[in-house]
Amino acid sequence: MNDAALDFYFDFASTYSYPAAMRIGALAQAAGVTVRWRPFLLGPVFKAQGWDTSPFNLYPAKGRYMWRDLERVCAELELPFCRPDPFPQPSLLAARVAHAGFDDGWGEAFCRAVFAAEFGEGRQIGDESVLADLLQGLGVAPAPALARARSEENKARLRDATAAAERAGVFGAPSFVTPDDELFWGHDRLGDALAWAARTHPR
Amino acid sequence: MNDAALDFYFDFASTYSYPAAMRIGALAQAAGVTVRWRPFLLGPVFKAQGWDTSPFNLYPAKGRYMWRDLERVCAELELPFCRPDPFPQPSLLAARVAHAGFDDGWGEAFCRAVFAAEFGEGRQIGDESVLADLLQGLGVAPAPALARARSEENKARLRDATAAAERAGVFGAPSFVTPDDELFWGHDRLGDALAWAARTHPR
Repeated sequence: MNDAALDFYFDFASTYSYPAAMRIGALAQAAGVTVRWRPFLLGPVFKAQGWDTSPFNLYPAKGRYMWRDLERVCAELELPFCRPDPFPQPSLLAARVAHAGFDDGWGEAFCRAVFAAEFGEGRQIGDESVLADLLQGLGVAPAPALARARSEENKARLRDATAAAERAGVFGAPSFVTPDDELFWGHDRLGDALAWAARTHPR
Repeated sequence: MNDAALDFYFDFASTYSYPAAMRIGALAQAAGVTVRWRPFLLGPVFKAQGWDTSPFNLYPAKGRYMWRDLERVCAELELPFCRPDPFPQPSLLAARVAHAGFDDGWGEAFCRAVFAAEFGEGRQIGDESVLADLLQGLGVAPAPALARARSEENKARLRDATAAAERAGVFGAPSFVTPDDELFWGHDRLGDALAWAARTHPR
């Protein structure tokens, strides 16, 4: 754990987490900020707000807007975009695999691969075979990685990340938490969060 | 009505409408875009989503975040900030007065004065005496302006603006609608909305 890192909380099902995940590496490097990737589960967070699915499904006007806005955002950033169906995609297994990968050095690349497959190509990230395919693409043997993802120790990591997100006041994704506990919500605040972290905790 | 104008939908009770209202004049001029100010009422729009007050009150984690974020945004923009109490402020009368003022050329200045009083000084914008004071500060005789604000013709304007917002897909404020019906939501999208309008409908 790095005390001087910006915590990047995201859920693989979260739409605006896609551009954030694809951009944060280069932007953080330019800003001189270390990032800790923290996949968590939005489900329990939404449940606490009384929601049993994404607010983009619960509030259709907001949902229609979000899809159009995300399309515009991706076009501007030259990121491929393909609306996932169904939405939201089941993100539990992918989140567990990611946590298993951080120790081994392939966690961040796996996260980007999942987002690119889901929102760039419309693939089903809840399918184990899709995740196995993505692992293979990174040169990681799928079977042991998936077994480790499902270990009790690793499941606990994901629960811990979700609990830490809730303690930090996270109510949506992506969210960024600075070492001095400033919370920034949304892909729109990525730059602000990095600037805050760089100003208050120079590396 | 100007077909080549960006429609700026806002409610005087809306927090992020404050920085948007204070900035849009200068930014629109720089972008070469004409703006039509359209105060409307969020109440009916929220009711359609099942909410009887601001989502910032209904979802406390989101509300706590918004107040801190708004404080940061205002500090960055060097706008005075004072959290209104109670929140949301009753915005009906201010919206009616604004609509009465657009014909006379003091509508936009009045809107800025209301936002500055509410979010910069914590004044009660639901009080007629506060609005009268703001009108006086603009050199506008309060009594006839308030009488005109309450005329049936003027009340209908506010209802029309709210209906137009709903037709345009507006679900929150501030929102911006371009001449080719692109919707942009939030103070964060002000620059994008102006750029879109400038690109597709050069003046």
